[in-house]
Amino acid sequence: MDISHIEHLGIAVKSLDEAIPYYENVLGFKCYNIEEVADQKVRTAFFKVGDTKIELLEPTSPESTIAKFIENRGEGVHHIAFAVKGIESALAEAEEKGVRLIDKTPRAGAEGMTIAFLHPKSTQGVLTEFCEKL
Amino acid sequence: MDISHIEHLGIAVKSLDEAIPYYENVLGFKCYNIEEVADQKVRTAFFKVGDTKIELLEPTSPESTIAKFIENRGEGVHHIAFAVKGIESALAEAEEKGVRLIDKTPRAGAEGMTIAFLHPKSTQGVLTEFCEKL
Repeated sequence: MDISHIEHLGIAVKSLDEAIPYYENVLGFKCYNIEEVADQKVRTAFFKVGDTKIELLEPTSPESTIAKFIENRGEGVHHIAFAVKGIESALAEAEEKGVRLIDKTPRAGAEGMTIAFLHPKSTQGVLTEFCEKL
Repeated sequence: MDISHIEHLGIAVKSLDEAIPYYENVLGFKCYNIEEVADQKVRTAFFKVGDTKIELLEPTSPESTIAKFIENRGEGVHHIAFAVKGIESALAEAEEKGVRLIDKTPRAGAEGMTIAFLHPKSTQGVLTEFCEKL
């Protein structure tokens, strides 16, 4: 498997309006994009730090998986996304090695990436995403 | 504040022996160091992916904060550490801007780093570390 870096960290927040000032005014990052992902029922705000993006995720509906995450565990890190070369073969390799997949085939994600999730039961509780810019 | 990149992600795991094979054999990273931090009551295993380290944290005692974290929330991402230039002035700036500090002055961390934690109540639930190689 060929993973080059952590592409982004997904962080669940109750409110972008409350969270963005911390990332901008305290940490000094710049929010360069806000995007609504309707089928995930989230609004996302993006920052860049080194090679890695921070992706804040605000639920837009109580039905959103992010709303449920916050209800169960509170705000915090929701997932880690690794930039992988050859996402289909990476998924096949993970499955062959006993990892349970949430997405058996890659699908479209934010920012034009192709993405797929591994199940946290197979990854010591860390919801893990593979992503690739095609 | 001058943050260059995510220095590491701390991930709480029940057992390094169970977690390391996933990071090595599935994700293809190489564990380059295992270190016991006696005063934190943890054993840590380090991997590098791009600019960022992954630091697995296994509690060595039920009294460890990592053991309590796992008991309360399960295994998963425990903290994000940002590489900052000028850790003392970064802490002063954060405090001045209303962030609650866990460590008012920096202290020694793993791998010869100087570190300090911000309180997750001030950072939307993300336990946040500043660190600097002096």
